[in-house]
Amino acid sequence: MPEFDLINQFFKPTTIKRDDVLVGIGDDCAILSTPPGKALAISTDTLISGVHFPQSTCAEDIGYKSLAVNLSDLAAMGAEPAWVSLAISLPQADESWLKQFMHGFNQLARQFNLALIGGDTTQGPLSITVNITGFVDASRALKRSQAKVGDSIFVTGNIGDASIGLKAVFNQLKSQPLFTDNNKSECIKRLNRPVPRIKAGQLLTSFSGAAIDISDGLLADLNHICEASSVGALINLQQIPLSQAALNYYGNLPGAQIGGHIDWQSILTGGDDYELCFTCADQQYAQMQDMMESHNIDIFCIGKIIDEPGIKCLHNETLMSLDHTGYNHFK
Amino acid sequence: MPEFDLINQFFKPTTIKRDDVLVGIGDDCAILSTPPGKALAISTDTLISGVHFPQSTCAEDIGYKSLAVNLSDLAAMGAEPAWVSLAISLPQADESWLKQFMHGFNQLARQFNLALIGGDTTQGPLSITVNITGFVDASRALKRSQAKVGDSIFVTGNIGDASIGLKAVFNQLKSQPLFTDNNKSECIKRLNRPVPRIKAGQLLTSFSGAAIDISDGLLADLNHICEASSVGALINLQQIPLSQAALNYYGNLPGAQIGGHIDWQSILTGGDDYELCFTCADQQYAQMQDMMESHNIDIFCIGKIIDEPGIKCLHNETLMSLDHTGYNHFK
Repeated sequence: MPEFDLINQFFKPTTIKRDDVLVGIGDDCAILSTPPGKALAISTDTLISGVHFPQSTCAEDIGYKSLAVNLSDLAAMGAEPAWVSLAISLPQADESWLKQFMHGFNQLARQFNLALIGGDTTQGPLSITVNITGFVDASRALKRSQAKVGDSIFVTGNIGDASIGLKAVFNQLKSQPLFTDNNKSECIKRLNRPVPRIKAGQLLTSFSGAAIDISDGLLADLNHICEASSVGALINLQQIPLSQAALNYYGNLPGAQIGGHIDWQSILTGGDDYELCFTCADQQYAQMQDMMESHNIDIFCIGKIIDEPGIKCLHNETLMSLDHTGYNHFK
Repeated sequence: MPEFDLINQFFKPTTIKRDDVLVGIGDDCAILSTPPGKALAISTDTLISGVHFPQSTCAEDIGYKSLAVNLSDLAAMGAEPAWVSLAISLPQADESWLKQFMHGFNQLARQFNLALIGGDTTQGPLSITVNITGFVDASRALKRSQAKVGDSIFVTGNIGDASIGLKAVFNQLKSQPLFTDNNKSECIKRLNRPVPRIKAGQLLTSFSGAAIDISDGLLADLNHICEASSVGALINLQQIPLSQAALNYYGNLPGAQIGGHIDWQSILTGGDDYELCFTCADQQYAQMQDMMESHNIDIFCIGKIIDEPGIKCLHNETLMSLDHTGYNHFK
């Protein structure tokens, strides 16, 4: 099937309509009108088969996740999603694969009123690059550099499930008596279907802290905030929210000697969580918490921004030694 | 070398500064301010090694071409370049390769005042996806759908050289006594270093025609204009500008029976020309020509928009039968 037929069958007809898309898919460029007074937030992510998702991942999950990880970047700036470009390289024009891929992609696109405005379809090893644009008040964007000493540090949800999901997909799970098949499914879902925390990010633009989305692991990503803000962080491991699945798997592992028999190293560096990690000044804490509660958004305080550089992890008031490094493409 | 070191060494320090880039490389998103009254033109192109450029292409040429083909899309809408995101997937973190790549990329970025605002660097088969944003008056963007019956059809430069360059790189050139080593170098340069016709595109926004950039071959791309505008085209082959190199190579080929012993089929479908093909109403013709001349921009009238669908090619007033198909990724 020729490239233009693919565009006409799978991309052009399935996109949502937005009034600000003056020329959509099918010309040399898309033409877009911008809302007065707003700045643009733009982000790009590439997902490569066998690197960013296991080769066995189904097309629908790849489509969903390709967009979810980009939306997560908009969330981490507090931006409102608007337009997306999709560059997809495919070994062959597999119509059923593309249909499933776009099914997953469009679930999220519809949910967040995101118009597909263009892209490129090429033949090659499976790889997806998504470029997303959102709107944000320039002065309120959630920059990494805005953490201040004394701020509390929060995350928007459970950490560590996706890394168990990844082990599950590769049949690398160790036998754990409490870890059920249901737990396994939940963790694989956290790996393949991360929930971009768009609403939480937008609410945070009313406050003054820093934010990042956790893609490379909590320690690595919090470290980006610390470096950009020239501060450090003190994390209390017992405050980090864990799912029952993670407790069942990472608790009492034979090899887990640190942190009360919980394998914190894996939890905090596994990555793919796509929760937000953000900071909030004490004087805004109560108001921020109220606003999140009124939108039924869970947040968990896990520590404090401190003056001394680096990240310290406490467990029962004892300092734990953990390697902070996240996923690195070029070792 | 870790991904963040690559960003800090090769991407962040080499980009030009623009006042409208409020947050550049290094946060979850770039934050950009938009000029009032202007619409955005956004385009994405993927270049895959062995598909869009021969595997033997040097890093500097790949860097140049990756940006040139995107700029060419902005040119085809009449837009002014502003920001670019670069997603690059590399088999390994080859510092000398990256340095050369960015050298080629930045030559064009500097020339067109284009800021690198973000991207993604991943490990995988060599592939580059560039997403470019420019500014344009929404009502003046050069859409493919704006060709009218009676319009003259123009191109901005010689057609067919890049396809000879491609044959040269693959050692597939047939022996042609008049075709010199200099000719060969010129054609390879046209393949690897296309000149994006940004200024020509911007000038054309003062007129009312359609435009496209020639990437897949003149016939295939002109056909996009015809389909989008619900018109046809009549091309006079003798008016198509050819370089001396193309005349030396494609003239008097043993297998070339059509068009006075010139292999028009290859010239018109070879692709990679990256000239603009555009239309102009007769009443604007003289004024448009004057404006182009005053900016030292060559244009060549090659035919007329007609009512009957499809593209007809005349040579000495005889209709030639040519296959219109351009490059297709999924045959």
